[in-house]
Amino acid sequence: MSEPDLRRPGPDPAPSTGGAQPTDRRLLRGARARRTIARHAADVASLDGLTGLSIGRLAADLGLSKSGVATLFGSKERLQLAAADAAREAFIGAVARPAAEAPPGAARLRALTERWISYAEAPLFPGGCFWAANLPEFDSRPGPVRDALLDHRREWLALLTRELRRAAEDGAAAFRDADLAAFQIDAVLTAANTALRLGDATAPDKARRTVEDLLAPA
Amino acid sequence: MSEPDLRRPGPDPAPSTGGAQPTDRRLLRGARARRTIARHAADVASLDGLTGLSIGRLAADLGLSKSGVATLFGSKERLQLAAADAAREAFIGAVARPAAEAPPGAARLRALTERWISYAEAPLFPGGCFWAANLPEFDSRPGPVRDALLDHRREWLALLTRELRRAAEDGAAAFRDADLAAFQIDAVLTAANTALRLGDATAPDKARRTVEDLLAPA
Repeated sequence: MSEPDLRRPGPDPAPSTGGAQPTDRRLLRGARARRTIARHAADVASLDGLTGLSIGRLAADLGLSKSGVATLFGSKERLQLAAADAAREAFIGAVARPAAEAPPGAARLRALTERWISYAEAPLFPGGCFWAANLPEFDSRPGPVRDALLDHRREWLALLTRELRRAAEDGAAAFRDADLAAFQIDAVLTAANTALRLGDATAPDKARRTVEDLLAPA
Repeated sequence: MSEPDLRRPGPDPAPSTGGAQPTDRRLLRGARARRTIARHAADVASLDGLTGLSIGRLAADLGLSKSGVATLFGSKERLQLAAADAAREAFIGAVARPAAEAPPGAARLRALTERWISYAEAPLFPGGCFWAANLPEFDSRPGPVRDALLDHRREWLALLTRELRRAAEDGAAAFRDADLAAFQIDAVLTAANTALRLGDATAPDKARRTVEDLLAPA
């Protein structure tokens, strides 16, 4: 994602079908169906992995025809890419965008941490963190899907690093290396996601304490 | 695993078939075949997950008959449990047992960290950390396989916590809470495993620095 996506989000343009021609309406319906299917595919992939996606299963889940879904996506790889993109949009909407309302630096890092924990606790996706579920599966499968998941991961680490640098400039940070601290925050949040999925409710607080220790006044 | 397994390991008893009766020899051959298959199953599961295991594929990989493999394990779940057990044995042999030669406390924690990083870098399993690959898959599948994976995770965290407490008694530790520090060490090692699988070679050093910061003199 480009920075503006994260920091200056705008609402989705509402589709206005008022004066549209029949072809436009059909395209809009197609785009809406595509979004619905891709978002459901992200849910399924959070549980069973992107490799577990099948056009037949998605069609059955959503009461659509298999050929209709196949026409919209074309290939399993394009369906996987659409699911990853839908997951990224949902993550931005649930975590990055609301946290961007907090002032940059330490306050925004705390907001990102809380939003991330909520995202893992009351799962946005039924299987918890989408990337925690899918990166381990795709690490040994080079290709566009892996590249997309990696780009998302880099965006997230870059966002953490940027806010950590800002927090350091404000003198509110005990850490010495923003890259290292971003790695640590990402690591404890991901570990909290795993622990939550396994029934360990103490983990989110451990993640919070890690972030607080990093943000203590130098 | 029980503590003695980790801390006072002995060599495997060498099978001596010298005076064995035919039935004993058959049992020994069966036990050896079972071990070979279970260890290969752990390799496969590190890449494709325990849910991806199949008796047919293992038999084909190892040039055995499908019915022979089926007889040895009985069910897919028992095959998965055997694979998890083989993975645990291999992990103990590569990480916990050699690190136990270092003095308890800070030195042993550094040895565990280095052994763990080697385990992830020059993978003991072709897919990297077995638990990082399989815990996310089994978190939403209650049953004996999930229980076994959870037991292994608890053992590992208990080992880290014990050594951290010992390091704190020796005054060599900057952390305040051994449970929290164990969670953090496990989190950065797991994150380093993921990053390595994705081609990021800087991650092991970040894990090392995290451990060193925790072990700095108070």
